[in-house]
This record gives sequence, structure tokens and C-alpha cells, in this order.
Amino acid sequence: MIQAKGYAAQNPNEKLDPWNFERREVGNHDVQIEILYCGVCHSDLAQINNEWFPGVFPMVPGHEIVGRIVKVGDHVKNFKTGDLAGVGTMVNSCGKCEHCEDGLEQYCDEGAVGTYNALDKFGDGKQTYGGYSNTIVTNEAFTVHISEKLDLAATAPLLCAGITTYSPLKHWKVGKGHKVAVLGLGGLGHMAVKFAVALGAEVTILSTSPKKEADAKRLGAHHFVVTTDANQTNKVKSSFDFIVDTVSAEHDFGFYLSLLKVDGVHICVGVPPGIHLNGSLGAFSLLGGRKSIVGSTCGGVKETQEMLDFCAQHNITSDIELIDIKDIQTAFERMERSDVKYRFVIDMATL
Amino acid sequence: MIQAKGYAAQNPNEKLDPWNFERREVGNHDVQIEILYCGVCHSDLAQINNEWFPGVFPMVPGHEIVGRIVKVGDHVKNFKTGDLAGVGTMVNSCGKCEHCEDGLEQYCDEGAVGTYNALDKFGDGKQTYGGYSNTIVTNEAFTVHISEKLDLAATAPLLCAGITTYSPLKHWKVGKGHKVAVLGLGGLGHMAVKFAVALGAEVTILSTSPKKEADAKRLGAHHFVVTTDANQTNKVKSSFDFIVDTVSAEHDFGFYLSLLKVDGVHICVGVPPGIHLNGSLGAFSLLGGRKSIVGSTCGGVKETQEMLDFCAQHNITSDIELIDIKDIQTAFERMERSDVKYRFVIDMATL
Repeated sequence: MIQAKGYAAQNPNEKLDPWNFERREVGNHDVQIEILYCGVCHSDLAQINNEWFPGVFPMVPGHEIVGRIVKVGDHVKNFKTGDLAGVGTMVNSCGKCEHCEDGLEQYCDEGAVGTYNALDKFGDGKQTYGGYSNTIVTNEAFTVHISEKLDLAATAPLLCAGITTYSPLKHWKVGKGHKVAVLGLGGLGHMAVKFAVALGAEVTILSTSPKKEADAKRLGAHHFVVTTDANQTNKVKSSFDFIVDTVSAEHDFGFYLSLLKVDGVHICVGVPPGIHLNGSLGAFSLLGGRKSIVGSTCGGVKETQEMLDFCAQHNITSDIELIDIKDIQTAFERMERSDVKYRFVIDMATL
Repeated sequence: MIQAKGYAAQNPNEKLDPWNFERREVGNHDVQIEILYCGVCHSDLAQINNEWFPGVFPMVPGHEIVGRIVKVGDHVKNFKTGDLAGVGTMVNSCGKCEHCEDGLEQYCDEGAVGTYNALDKFGDGKQTYGGYSNTIVTNEAFTVHISEKLDLAATAPLLCAGITTYSPLKHWKVGKGHKVAVLGLGGLGHMAVKFAVALGAEVTILSTSPKKEADAKRLGAHHFVVTTDANQTNKVKSSFDFIVDTVSAEHDFGFYLSLLKVDGVHICVGVPPGIHLNGSLGAFSLLGGRKSIVGSTCGGVKETQEMLDFCAQHNITSDIELIDIKDIQTAFERMERSDVKYRFVIDMATL
């Protein structure tokens, strides 16, 4: 076994502390990565706090992993020692169902294996540990190449926040001629802006906070609408082809549907506590313009690689605040207040 | 002016009684239809009762109109006296917006003019009156041809229930190889079954009532699932490409989403009091399989004609109960109890 160290929550809702654990030996199809940076995702905190489902503890969070390959298995084809590499939200899947065969491992019929907080039921059956650690061993099929051209720390969040916003934009064929609104300017939202702009769309940020306008423009957004100002929102009624909704708090879906054109699509990538359309007007706000509310979660390995290549080509990375791993609790607290521009990334040299 | 007679509600929530009123003279682009049959739609009662918006009274309901043309305007091109013809839910629209130009008058930017309970803002500005009457004058652009091959009374419901289910099936390209579930076996649902079967899909009816199985099969459904029986529903988890949801009462969207495959689409054509996805599991039930909840309402004039031609080709009509117009209140009461197989149609000879 390979000795590893990281930060773990020993029990639900507990703080993270240094912890030593073991990674599996490098198998024939495995690579071992020295983790250099790991992004801090809202879902890390949600999972530590058992918000989605009862977690597997001790839990080493982290699924926005980048680093350098230090060892490859005998049958590894696509990576060599010294390569930059990344690991996202999944480390295994059944490999046999139609979705896995289509490169949509995130929708595996048997359920993909999370990079942490899971048991590798298609592998050794053992618990998976994430990227808040110094090293990881993964099957090359769930490992992606990272360009040397990009700032490495700022690349880490692409592995979750990046693919989560890129995938639906591609799936719903967002591009030139489309008007796209991005709802929520955080980790996901700021990536959605960058991708939608790069794909050629006309991008508007919808925000409750007028203070964000300058930053919105800096990120490439063409327009900024303060959603609490009816004068501004009335001007964008029935105007968007797509809304990319990154908000994970309760919000008014009926209002946002009213901003969509006929055939408009409201894409949920955040995880709100609920989606509610109330009253007959609520239902008509969907029916009356043949509108859609859709959801999407991360992306497959192949598409993650495509996204990373797209980022290298368009010089896209995340805006980050690099932190010392000892400051992870402070980072969690700030993240909960949306006080981060726009993603915390742990510098694993501080471990 | 043309003297007309019909049944009207003089005020909201009142019973319908005989009423004499006037239709406009036949203009250059108008046809006058002697109404032979008119279907009874749930929305007739909803509008009499001001459930959607404050109505225009006296109200003559009815937007599933079929009859024979008795007069045509000087510039009418596509109809002649003696032709069978139909009028659906709309009688005018702006004619200039992109949706009107695309033949999607139901999504007119300015709002299409309802066949009743509206003011003809693009025409003479006067109130519109529906099909519970002996005659109607309409612009030929909002008039469709009806085949002599089909049972005429059973054709009337195609003008609303038919197009409302046909349009989304075509828009989302439902066809061979698709598994389609139809939720709710009423006026809309029974038409959805007939169309989905005719389009080549494998069709399952989802119902709370085991009693409906025989009728479901008679209508052409391939399978029948009692939704209160977990043994049956567990077998169809993640199995449908589409659900056509015709239910206008509150129901559990999360449960039905769980029956959809990855990329499955839940199509709302009924008007439920609310659409609710609650809790993080609720949001994940959408995100976790890249699923969609979409809405659709009736269809444009061109597509309504296409649907009617499809019906003539495939010998599709509605299952109806023909009634005397004097029994309209009893029909409304039975319709509210879903006690109709599957649509009431008024024989206008009884007026």
C-alpha cells in the first residue's frame, strides 16, 4: 500500500484535521498522481455535513484534483511519468451500460463511484478518498490530461465547476446568436460566463447585487441586470434563450421563466432546496412558451478532456484564491457566505 | 351583422343559458361556418369560473369547433362553401412576430386571440364568442380543413385535445424506439395514447386505477402500470424516454422523474396547480439524469392542419359522448369527476 496524508473529517459535521491513510498500489491500468492543487467545492462541505446522503467516514474531500504523474501501471497507454494530470468527481463506473459506453459515466446505470465518500464497488470495494491529500491512485480511464500552458492552480476547479457548466452548454448547443443569462456569480457562475462567452453567446449576468457589475464585465459578460430592479428586469422579459442557473438557494423559478423566450431552457446546475412552480400561472409559465426546466450534473471523462482542451485553446481558467490547507475551515466559512472570488484552491505544498 | 344563438354564462361561475348575439359580417378573408359539433374542454369550465384570469362576459365557450362552410369572403383562397372546416383555440394573432411567422401563433409575442373569452385586438377589437353556438365567422388563416372520411363529431376534440398532445410529441420527435408513458387517461391522455402509438412508440399508461387497463389496451396502449403498486412501478424505474403528463391535479413530479431514463423528458400538457420538486433529492432527480420538465400548449394553425391530415391518414378520432346542449351543466359536473369516455361533444342540432 501507498502511504498518503491528507485532511479528513472523522465524523459528520466535524472539522477537518490532518490524517494519514493508505492508497492502493498502482495497478496495471492505474496512475499515481502527486497532487499539487485541489479546488474547494460547495459539495465538499455538503458531503461532510451529510446533506445529500449519509457519508462514509473518515472523509477526505476534494474532487478538483490536479498534479503530476509519478508512477504509471504496466498497461497504462495514455499517460507517462511527469505528465500533468487531473481527476474530477468520479473514479470508476460500471463501464458496461449504455451511458458508460456513450462516455456519460456520470449517468452510469449502476451509479458512478465518487472520487471520495464512496466505495469503489467496481474496483477493490474499498473506500475512496479525495484530493485534500498529497497523492492519489486512479485508473487512467478516469484521469485527464492537463495543459502545461495554463496556470495549474487555476485549472483545478475546471474538474468540477468547469465541466459542470461546460457540459450543459454543449449539450444544449449554446453558441453564436444565443442570449444566455447566468444566474448566480460564484464558482459555477463565473465559469458559465467564461464558457458561454467563449462559445460565442451574448451573456447577461443576473444578480441581486449591483456591486458585482464591474467584476461581471471583467469576466466577459456583455450585460448586467440587477434582478431586484423591475426597470431593469422588465427590459429583459422573454429575451433569453437559456438561463444557466447556478444558485443553490431557494429562488423564484416562475420569475426567471418569464425572462426566457419561447422555447427557452432553464438549466439547473446548482442544487436548490426545491423547484416550485405554484398556481396555474406557474404551470402556464412553462406551458405558455414551450419552455423547459432541465438539470445536468458534471460531465463524462471524454467531455472533461474536451473541456480542458477547450480551456487551453481559449486560455480559460478559474478565478481563484489560493489557500493553505490549514485554513480550510475559514475557507468553508467564507464559501458559505459566498465570500470568495471565485473558487478556493488548496496549495498542497502546505500540507 | 349576423344573428347567432348559443349558450352563454352571463357572469363568472354562472350556469350556461341560451343567448342570442351577433357575429361580424363575413369579411374578405373570412369564412362563415355552420357549427355542427363542438367539444367540451376542461378549460371551458375553468374560464367560466375565472380560474385562469378575469374573463370577458357574457361568455360563449367552446374551441373544438367543426362544421360546414356556408359563406366565404371575396378573397378567401383555400375554402369554398360546403367544405367541412374546423376552428381551434385561436382566431387571430399579430401575424408579424417571429412565432407567427414560424406558424407558432399560440406563442405570438403579442398574445394570440382566444376563440372565446378575448377581445380581437388584431381585428375589430370586439369580443370573441366560442363554439357553443350555431355559427361562427373566422379568418381563413385560423380555419382548418376537416376530412370527410372521419366521424365528424369525434373529430371536434382534435381541435384542442388532439393538437395539444400531437404538438409536443412532434416537437420532441417522439417515434419508433421510444418508450412513452402517458399519465392520466382523460380527454388529453387518450389522444396522447393514440398519437404516440401511431407515431411508432411503445406506450404505457400510468394510472392509479386498475379498472382502466382494459380500456387502455383498447385504445392501443402496449402496457399498463398501476402507479399505487410498487411492484409494478419498480419494474419501470428509469425506463421511459418521455412522459406525457395530462394531469391537471397536484401530483408527485419527483416520482415520475424517477421513471424516466437519462435524458428523459417529462412533458406537461395538463395544467396542475403546481410543479414541486422538494429537497436536494428533488433537485437531483432532475440533475442526476439530465432530465427535463417541459410544457407545451396547443399548436399552430399549420400544425393543427398537419395533425388533422395525420388523423385522416391513420383513422384517428377522439372517443366521445355526444350530448344535447341542454345537458351541458350535467356534462360539466361529470367532466369534473373525470366521468367521461373521453370527451363530451355537443350536437349543435340540439341548440
